Amino acid sequence: MVIFKEIKPLKAYLNAQGAAANSIGFVPTMGALHEGHLSLIKASKAQNTVTVCSIFVNPTQFNNPTDLEKYPRTLPQDSAMLEKAGCDVLFCPEVSEMYSEPQQLAFDFGHLDKVLEGEFRPGHFSGVALVVAKLFNIVRPHRAYFGQKDFQQCKIVSKLVEELKFDIDLIFVPIVREPSGLAMSSRNARLSEEGKKKASILYQCLQDARYQLLQGKSFSEMKKMVQLLCSQQNIRLEYFALADRVNFTLLENVTKPDQALLLIAGYVEEVRLIDNIYLTDK
Amino acid sequence: MVIFKEIKPLKAYLNAQGAAANSIGFVPTMGALHEGHLSLIKASKAQNTVTVCSIFVNPTQFNNPTDLEKYPRTLPQDSAMLEKAGCDVLFCPEVSEMYSEPQQLAFDFGHLDKVLEGEFRPGHFSGVALVVAKLFNIVRPHRAYFGQKDFQQCKIVSKLVEELKFDIDLIFVPIVREPSGLAMSSRNARLSEEGKKKASILYQCLQDARYQLLQGKSFSEMKKMVQLLCSQQNIRLEYFALADRVNFTLLENVTKPDQALLLIAGYVEEVRLIDNIYLTDK
Repeated sequence: MVIFKEIKPLKAYLNAQGAAANSIGFVPTMGALHEGHLSLIKASKAQNTVTVCSIFVNPTQFNNPTDLEKYPRTLPQDSAMLEKAGCDVLFCPEVSEMYSEPQQLAFDFGHLDKVLEGEFRPGHFSGVALVVAKLFNIVRPHRAYFGQKDFQQCKIVSKLVEELKFDIDLIFVPIVREPSGLAMSSRNARLSEEGKKKASILYQCLQDARYQLLQGKSFSEMKKMVQLLCSQQNIRLEYFALADRVNFTLLENVTKPDQALLLIAGYVEEVRLIDNIYLTDK
Repeated sequence: MVIFKEIKPLKAYLNAQGAAANSIGFVPTMGALHEGHLSLIKASKAQNTVTVCSIFVNPTQFNNPTDLEKYPRTLPQDSAMLEKAGCDVLFCPEVSEMYSEPQQLAFDFGHLDKVLEGEFRPGHFSGVALVVAKLFNIVRPHRAYFGQKDFQQCKIVSKLVEELKFDIDLIFVPIVREPSGLAMSSRNARLSEEGKKKASILYQCLQDARYQLLQGKSFSEMKKMVQLLCSQQNIRLEYFALADRVNFTLLENVTKPDQALLLIAGYVEEVRLIDNIYLTDK
């Protein structure tokens, strides 16, 4: 695996590989890699001749400075994991390589960045879109891979690619879970063993609510159930929502089960976690 | 000259030309071409193996629907002019090829899109950035050419390229003027002969103000002079401003003449015109 910290030599390397003629698969990450990330690398390797992974803890997508500061950074382990997984190129730039001062550009995605994650993390998706657009222009991939745990992010990136006419196929890869059901996340590293057990309740909430919604229970009942469960377990619930998978409008009732998903966000041991589940497997 | 109305065949053509390996020069326009545009084509031909011109009256950059409706559209003449100028490729898409519904993405450039043109044309620069980003991703040029008449637009595009890490060299080409001094503009086609004469006063204002500022007169005096001149001639002045060329902050006094420029915008016969001039030729 070849490692680059700077844009110019990375671009020169990819050009010299004739990578434009072949296919480049790209997996943008913030590091602290886990099985979820490796499933993206695996998907990219199966479809492309060159797989590029980026590790960059992007400051503009953190609305909370403490969250940015505490975000796990484990580059040596990450690098070893990527090497083992057969990743071809690692791009891990410093902030100064990615951002010039003063930062002046922001994105507005309308409804899509105002609800759920957008409501609780103002500016987050503008920062995501900014760094993804930068990385797309640097790496110029044919395909890019994102995890479905960040479902709303997948919608944002889809919109970005559609609106800015990036010639990139997006592949969204299903969530990888711990045996307990807890969705894999870099932030899990900040949880105690007890915290991890507690955090798996988020997925249980999603599963229970899905089951009962499909049995005909109302979403408002489900909301109450989830609120109660979380408060009993000392999980500070931020949202529990039902949304349309396609246009991401928030729903109060299930009308088209095949197009609906449930999303949840909450704090366990002061660590913010998110998860989601499709209402049907279709 | 090869003409494309759709993105896919344009991209296929440019790829087949091995254009990525050579150099693509790109001149984005809204048509109604004049000598100013041709100077951009000429500059591109001198530096690149393939020159691509786009003609697209971009709806998202028009804050005023009447302005959009009345914007001159002269595709057959434009096409003949480009052919004669030696342009290699013309891309003239329909709106539906460039925009999908619903339109949801907007850009915010902070200060840069809030002053002068940004103040009087809210949303204008977001629309400019959006269409330029689309076109850059479609054409993937090595160099792109813009006219300095739209000076603030040049700053916006510079910021866009810098922030989104587009690997494109920007070339800003000096204003081309009528013998009267009137800056060439597609909108001039909407002026009567008398209107054109009157419109040349905008440039006279800029020249007079430059001369007197360099003689030590204050900018506030110049403002009064320009306001008086315009009102006498029935020109509805929108702004007359002194700005820093580099960071585009508005100035109240000349401190560094080599870094200053004067900008003006006003209505002649209900046609909105803009112009600008450097305070020194450096």
